[in-house]
Amino acid sequence: MPKPTAGPEIERLIQLLAKVPGLGPRSARRAALHLIKKKEQLFFPLSAAMAEAAEKVKVCTRCGNVDTSDPCTICTDPRREDATLIVVEDVSDLWALERASAMNVRYHVLGGTLSPLDGVGPDDLNIRSLVSRVAEGGVSEIILAVNATVEGQTTAHYITDQLSDFEVKVTRLAHGVPVGGELDYLDEGTLAAALKSRTAFD
Amino acid sequence: MPKPTAGPEIERLIQLLAKVPGLGPRSARRAALHLIKKKEQLFFPLSAAMAEAAEKVKVCTRCGNVDTSDPCTICTDPRREDATLIVVEDVSDLWALERASAMNVRYHVLGGTLSPLDGVGPDDLNIRSLVSRVAEGGVSEIILAVNATVEGQTTAHYITDQLSDFEVKVTRLAHGVPVGGELDYLDEGTLAAALKSRTAFD
Repeated sequence: MPKPTAGPEIERLIQLLAKVPGLGPRSARRAALHLIKKKEQLFFPLSAAMAEAAEKVKVCTRCGNVDTSDPCTICTDPRREDATLIVVEDVSDLWALERASAMNVRYHVLGGTLSPLDGVGPDDLNIRSLVSRVAEGGVSEIILAVNATVEGQTTAHYITDQLSDFEVKVTRLAHGVPVGGELDYLDEGTLAAALKSRTAFD
Repeated sequence: MPKPTAGPEIERLIQLLAKVPGLGPRSARRAALHLIKKKEQLFFPLSAAMAEAAEKVKVCTRCGNVDTSDPCTICTDPRREDATLIVVEDVSDLWALERASAMNVRYHVLGGTLSPLDGVGPDDLNIRSLVSRVAEGGVSEIILAVNATVEGQTTAHYITDQLSDFEVKVTRLAHGVPVGGELDYLDEGTLAAALKSRTAFD
């Protein structure tokens, strides 16, 4: 039987912190100790922020984003274009695109990709609600920002099919060399795609 | 001005999570999203565990360990030997030694090392309370488990001086090759120490 080193509350905190992605059992211990040492500056504020976010967070019924309001901040933002919808697999993709701040548009989160082997069919994703949003009118372009995986591409094809009855342009992200990327480290598929989609040098 | 992506509660959670050691701005975002998705299994329990630990945690007035009780779990454990005290710089060292479970004894946390350049003198560390514990009697050995740094060794010498009036054996951790370590990757100082302290092959 291991001897108890710290009170059960601290042990439980470490156990739960270890389940946070990015932390493991060892770094959870280090994180807990850091929190305990920075009680006023970090531990209390973080604890309060967690309690507040945990209570208030919800899924936007319109686009599938997570936020503390429903409809979410993006859906209710009057400064965004309504005509373009970016379709993403996951909220993390939405956040990544928002960090890029490239387009001031709205989103639709699928919640995954079609995967017959894992038993994920069209009804398990937010595809029907996407079709409804397009059917409402006002959307002229759907950008399919799904991952460049087999499942992502299958899902993209399925969505294109579902939207074929509507007057809407369906586009996808360009394939190519990542900005700052070195050719030597890129796979053949990416290089071939980058060559095929070469653009005029200006 | 960046557009708001998520509610202020979520942004604040991400900002605070980014200050936890082991997480950065990017992984804090990923961690927050994971928490939001695993609301019932992880977010609520972690939030509750943080609130409870943040409120209950305190520093043991006897040994300097952090715990939810004072005196701490180790100081009050009746199954531990009273005759040996392991002196460590920091609570993280205490926890590391406890994980090794090598000795069933008690500890004394200094809270740092002597460092005249940083303005850390003997009165800034828990040295006086260590001398008091020894003066109370019942302690026959002090193991100085301080780091093998200049500051650690200076502190060790100072403590040895302070304890010279008492009938107590002062020892330090052995230097040598780490278990599983490869000689090729070890520094000369460690190798020299390991050679000097060589033991009979049994």
